[in-house]
Amino acid sequence: MKVVNVGLIGLGTVGTGTLRILQRNAQEITGRTGRDIRVTRVAVSDINKPRDANLEGITLSTDPLDIAHDPEIDIVVEMVGGDSVAKDAVLAAIQHGKHIVTANKALIATHGNEIFTAAEKQQVSVAFEAAVAGGIPVIKAIREGLAANRIEWLAGIINGTCNYILTRMEQDGLDFSNVLADAQALGYAEADPEFDIEGIDAAHKLTILASIAFGIPLQFEKLHVEGITSITIEDIRFAAELGFRIKHLGIARRSESGIELRVHPAMVPADRLIASVNGVMNATLVQSDAVGPTLYYGAGAGAEPTGSAVVADIVDVVRTLDADSGSRVPHLAFGTGTMPEQTIVPMGQIETAYYLRMKVINRPGVLAAITRIFGDSDISIATILQKGHGDNNSEVTIIMLTQQARESNLEQAVAHVRELDSVTSDIQSIRLENLA
Amino acid sequence: MKVVNVGLIGLGTVGTGTLRILQRNAQEITGRTGRDIRVTRVAVSDINKPRDANLEGITLSTDPLDIAHDPEIDIVVEMVGGDSVAKDAVLAAIQHGKHIVTANKALIATHGNEIFTAAEKQQVSVAFEAAVAGGIPVIKAIREGLAANRIEWLAGIINGTCNYILTRMEQDGLDFSNVLADAQALGYAEADPEFDIEGIDAAHKLTILASIAFGIPLQFEKLHVEGITSITIEDIRFAAELGFRIKHLGIARRSESGIELRVHPAMVPADRLIASVNGVMNATLVQSDAVGPTLYYGAGAGAEPTGSAVVADIVDVVRTLDADSGSRVPHLAFGTGTMPEQTIVPMGQIETAYYLRMKVINRPGVLAAITRIFGDSDISIATILQKGHGDNNSEVTIIMLTQQARESNLEQAVAHVRELDSVTSDIQSIRLENLA
Repeated sequence: MKVVNVGLIGLGTVGTGTLRILQRNAQEITGRTGRDIRVTRVAVSDINKPRDANLEGITLSTDPLDIAHDPEIDIVVEMVGGDSVAKDAVLAAIQHGKHIVTANKALIATHGNEIFTAAEKQQVSVAFEAAVAGGIPVIKAIREGLAANRIEWLAGIINGTCNYILTRMEQDGLDFSNVLADAQALGYAEADPEFDIEGIDAAHKLTILASIAFGIPLQFEKLHVEGITSITIEDIRFAAELGFRIKHLGIARRSESGIELRVHPAMVPADRLIASVNGVMNATLVQSDAVGPTLYYGAGAGAEPTGSAVVADIVDVVRTLDADSGSRVPHLAFGTGTMPEQTIVPMGQIETAYYLRMKVINRPGVLAAITRIFGDSDISIATILQKGHGDNNSEVTIIMLTQQARESNLEQAVAHVRELDSVTSDIQSIRLENLA
Repeated sequence: MKVVNVGLIGLGTVGTGTLRILQRNAQEITGRTGRDIRVTRVAVSDINKPRDANLEGITLSTDPLDIAHDPEIDIVVEMVGGDSVAKDAVLAAIQHGKHIVTANKALIATHGNEIFTAAEKQQVSVAFEAAVAGGIPVIKAIREGLAANRIEWLAGIINGTCNYILTRMEQDGLDFSNVLADAQALGYAEADPEFDIEGIDAAHKLTILASIAFGIPLQFEKLHVEGITSITIEDIRFAAELGFRIKHLGIARRSESGIELRVHPAMVPADRLIASVNGVMNATLVQSDAVGPTLYYGAGAGAEPTGSAVVADIVDVVRTLDADSGSRVPHLAFGTGTMPEQTIVPMGQIETAYYLRMKVINRPGVLAAITRIFGDSDISIATILQKGHGDNNSEVTIIMLTQQARESNLEQAVAHVRELDSVTSDIQSIRLENLA
């Protein structure tokens, strides 16, 4: 049986999970591939650190370049994360003709174009299923399973920390900050949670999903990115009352003016399947012209879920080792230059519906003034609810749902409403996505 | 650019959908494959029938063997359904070195072993994504996306007709027969619906899913198959009251004594994601050792959803045209002889929980007699509910939920309970699957 030698760079959570799976499920994996896949080298930062891994027959070193340069290694698996060491190691390995598997979303989202160009020159593969939604084979589904389709839009719950926090807020009626502390204690959020709760991690993943869905280059810098820190328990309760749930979504959508790329909290009708994706779980809903909606659900993080995607990529690369490189699945789904250039739509030009929440002094003419401002900005109101006692001159909460409107019009109207004397709070605004 | 010539056998619903997708999305498909995929021949039963399809540049004939024998054709797509004409055409095409794509679940489930053996001899591929769950790339997900995993079990809503009927019964409070008539009028059920509502279609699909999940040969004849005709609106209401929904599932599960293969209605906890898969939609939940649960959701039937899977298969086959056949994904996921032989568990030996419904005469000692019989058969009762007024000697409905029990013990106990004078109805029994 042919032997394939694999070198791992990094033996943290994902590296350990990957090694464990390759060892435990060796018989199944060999049955599927007809190859004996062996991890022969691992690069770690501290060689003497005790590790929960069977390292028998594996040469350890501290320099990733040892692996990138080793002529015996067929596939280099990069699992250090971040983008400086990782990028150097990946580019060096590519120069030495190695195929790459990586779980590193930041690396692919921000340096992927350069890495894929280098890989295509050397005729090697760079596989990155583990970079998006952990163990869910969503890259494979979009690049291969939906290859017949023109993809219209996709919407993903692609950050488990955000989804865990929003789920706990809803289910337990807790504030954001309380749940965040809990999530940190449970290991579902980092000590420095900014990367997750500000939407950056989701934006890396959406960058990748959008490229493979629409045949556009990776362009992380063009995304509109919002996190979940402004969502209150009040919003979650009002959403429920109106038949919605609040989810943190990455949305990529083909519109008449180009491709929308945006990461933000959104109200989703509660009866949509994706609205029932709770806790740390991830899911991506893809709307395509031939198959219609499809959804892919599973664990978006963790040692073995992410390791599952890493190993699936190793298996895929193994299958193409002897194949003509022109027959491989293109890194970003479409061959270079095969798709027309597409504009990324500036955020002000997108159209969606909105939920708005504000406090006002309850007196005659207030609602008339507010609704006139929206009307002047070409925004139709679908629903208005007033919360609180109706005594004259008391403070009440107003909830509004708009029809589809242009984001720049909404911003303009909100700015004007904020100037009204009778409006006594900031105006909370959450986009409302029908996902149908 | 390399040209790939495709011949279609059959131009019914799926054939028309496939042709339409290949024509409409030609640019996207070429962008993904770097190949010009052309349908050059189509075999139909009636050449003069007007068709809603663009047949420009396509040679029509009535004999599928014309296509199987044509030296210009690279890939033969079989979409006639059934198993006699289809089997002959597929085997003839294989003998002539053609790669095969088929949407025919009955053909694969009942003749797949023979077809794959012939294909391996001729070093051609037989692709069948469209045979299971229409446009959802679930075969690809299991064979490739989960290649790292030892799969523990899978449960699928894989017949849209059954799911539509059960959903309408629940949502509209209608009887089975009323909804069936409606489904027939809407085209969601055939004029002769037996194939769907008796579970045979789902059994074909489960046969295929189980093979690729566990590395076992296709063995349709060993499945336990039940349809949905015995489910009443009463059962659906009691299920809801107890926190469950009734779904028609195909379940394949690895247990200590072998592999369970069963198609039947099941009560599923209402908060499971799969319980919210409604209408004609399909979904498959797969539990694996590394990634944990993953779920794949989408349209399980229809011209373009099924055509989407057919075209994805064509694309996959195109990619392997120049590759070494030993590097391809094995037809049934695992290479021949790589997995140990596995027993299929006789239905009497499976263990699950049960919902039971019966009518009894309300008099002292009845419940004691019933529960003693279950106890004697080693079955623990989790819940008993009595429905109806409690007057002595009136007829009341008893609902019971059992703990996990062995199917043969349950059958024995039910047979004994049925003999009691005080039990005045048949005993409805529905398996209760936790799916966690």
